[in-house]
Amino acid sequence: MNSIKYSYEQLKKLCCDAFAGFGFSQEEAEQITDVLLLADLYGIRSHGTQRLVRYHKGIENDTIKIDAKPEIVFETPVSAVIDGHSGMGQLISVYAMKLAIKKAKEVGMAFVTVRNSNHYGIAGYYSKMACDEGLIGISTTNSESIAVHTNSKQAILGSNPIAFAMPAEPYPFWFDAATTVVPRGRLEVYNKENKPIAQSWAVDEEGKTCTDAERVLECINDKNSAGGILVLGGKTEQDGSHKGYGYSMISEILCAITSGGSTSNHHVRKKGQGAGTCHSFIVIDPKIFGDTETIKDHLSVFLQELRDAERADGEIPIYTHGEKEFINAEKVLKEGIDVNINTVAEMVRLCDYLGMNSVEYLGEVDISGTKQGNYDKVYK
Amino acid sequence: MNSIKYSYEQLKKLCCDAFAGFGFSQEEAEQITDVLLLADLYGIRSHGTQRLVRYHKGIENDTIKIDAKPEIVFETPVSAVIDGHSGMGQLISVYAMKLAIKKAKEVGMAFVTVRNSNHYGIAGYYSKMACDEGLIGISTTNSESIAVHTNSKQAILGSNPIAFAMPAEPYPFWFDAATTVVPRGRLEVYNKENKPIAQSWAVDEEGKTCTDAERVLECINDKNSAGGILVLGGKTEQDGSHKGYGYSMISEILCAITSGGSTSNHHVRKKGQGAGTCHSFIVIDPKIFGDTETIKDHLSVFLQELRDAERADGEIPIYTHGEKEFINAEKVLKEGIDVNINTVAEMVRLCDYLGMNSVEYLGEVDISGTKQGNYDKVYK
Repeated sequence: MNSIKYSYEQLKKLCCDAFAGFGFSQEEAEQITDVLLLADLYGIRSHGTQRLVRYHKGIENDTIKIDAKPEIVFETPVSAVIDGHSGMGQLISVYAMKLAIKKAKEVGMAFVTVRNSNHYGIAGYYSKMACDEGLIGISTTNSESIAVHTNSKQAILGSNPIAFAMPAEPYPFWFDAATTVVPRGRLEVYNKENKPIAQSWAVDEEGKTCTDAERVLECINDKNSAGGILVLGGKTEQDGSHKGYGYSMISEILCAITSGGSTSNHHVRKKGQGAGTCHSFIVIDPKIFGDTETIKDHLSVFLQELRDAERADGEIPIYTHGEKEFINAEKVLKEGIDVNINTVAEMVRLCDYLGMNSVEYLGEVDISGTKQGNYDKVYK
Repeated sequence: MNSIKYSYEQLKKLCCDAFAGFGFSQEEAEQITDVLLLADLYGIRSHGTQRLVRYHKGIENDTIKIDAKPEIVFETPVSAVIDGHSGMGQLISVYAMKLAIKKAKEVGMAFVTVRNSNHYGIAGYYSKMACDEGLIGISTTNSESIAVHTNSKQAILGSNPIAFAMPAEPYPFWFDAATTVVPRGRLEVYNKENKPIAQSWAVDEEGKTCTDAERVLECINDKNSAGGILVLGGKTEQDGSHKGYGYSMISEILCAITSGGSTSNHHVRKKGQGAGTCHSFIVIDPKIFGDTETIKDHLSVFLQELRDAERADGEIPIYTHGEKEFINAEKVLKEGIDVNINTVAEMVRLCDYLGMNSVEYLGEVDISGTKQGNYDKVYK
């Protein structure tokens, strides 16, 4: 048994009660849960319940401050700079994106940037917030160093994802991706599943291709060690490594440079201080280009034409970005969400820690032989 | 003799006189030349004088209209939509970027989008215009179909570059790259140099890796043929193909969807109508985030820390984006620009066409054995 199926509602109840158990208000706990579980609904397992342990560790070691409130430290009609005061990333970010949406509706476009925050879940949650209101939503974030940039030996840059969403039918265009070949969370998932990672994903402390997820995660955790995940485009300029490195820089500049916050190169999540994670939230109202329905139709036609292209492999559809995720959400809302047994074990341990009865949430589960080491090793 | 060295001034005189010869005013000819030659100064040979033939062909077949003037068809304080009426891409784009800069200085940020234009040279010329005034500059463009998106058999998407520039010392951050592994122009350069392209760049009409530049260019030119250049991240999702495809989509949405223009998937440069190329110009004034000098210093420190990272190959520097280009410009302004002999042959032919004495511009050159076929085959 490698995974157990739970309903969305079961996982929601566990997460809400856990975050309330940590001291968040009911409303806050629901908000955090909504961000986390959208990742599971969308099939982005790296960023859903499998990340509960990360937040648990952050709260336990006081990197995440339960009572902190975001503060606007600089503001113009089109912009705001927010200090997160080391609060929970999801709460700061929902606040920041709401502000960006409000300003964009007033002025046409807006840019809200955040410093001193924590990991905020999937970037695409926030771009979706804007998209759900008929707007173009963009979000980027930095993170601790995990990425080896062109000709670097060490992991210096963060996963630095870029999310972009825009309304269309029948699915919005919803793009959310780390600027590395894969995000750190993907390695965590492979580690839990005891699967080797692809040759093209990471290098070890000697700069050699490494397919052992646990070893790469250890390289990343040890700030003095070389090795880490490759930027999109891989190792060499010939394959476009400098391009992935460039997108990573754009993501980072938009959040960390504009906010005056910590940059990912060993300043974010530095021992003995707050995480210092930075985020950006950019919103554009399509009405600044003309009739919004015409614009939406134009995008819908374009996306359909891409789906209808002649396929290299006839058996596999050509997807547009977000399509797989929306289809997955419909499916798992009906059928339940597969949770890896190692993640279930983490949830049991979290329940124990918070004095919650795990059987009530997860049923009787056999977690013997699970990778308990993850709990302590991957997030020290 | 594979190349001849010319001074910047020599090439400038040739280009200015050629564009004036086509019927542009002296001021327009100088503006177009300035865009073209920045590519040669920066060592981006794919987009400099080697592209003269493309503009020649465009003017000859009336895809580029000499007398067209850009027209603002929709406008708000933060935005404008411009119809280029099939004018010269560089002229329309300088006009559009100047408008975006003006608006951003007034309001804090601005977005100008363009439809019905032509190839505009390097995207980074326009982001640099904003950067030179202390602003963040972004530009994207679409192009004719050259890129094979994830699981597509045919080249459907354009090269769809994204350029981003922001002031820093001693070099700005200046990123400009196609969202494909390489741009079409790189294949043109390899074709002229009779060199095989890398295994990771392109596929032929059967979807197989192809290292013959001329064959891939023929696949691209034949709208009914499969094959083309791969998006950044290559062929498979495992290597991140969907990410390069996603950046390509973002580039395209920002220009073609916002402007209501032609999308790259066989609508741009469709036979029997104007090119229909679209561009976007986005400008953000860093003052909307606080003190601009502090922000610039923050970026400068970050870039220096990246350069100072431990190197995988100790013999090669770690560059930040734009650094190589600025260093190259200083060098070739002193030493001259190497022009491939096939490009020299194209220039001779261009001079002949315009009734200019090629010897006066280029000296006595032996162009026997050059790839004259390029002139007719690559841009039909």
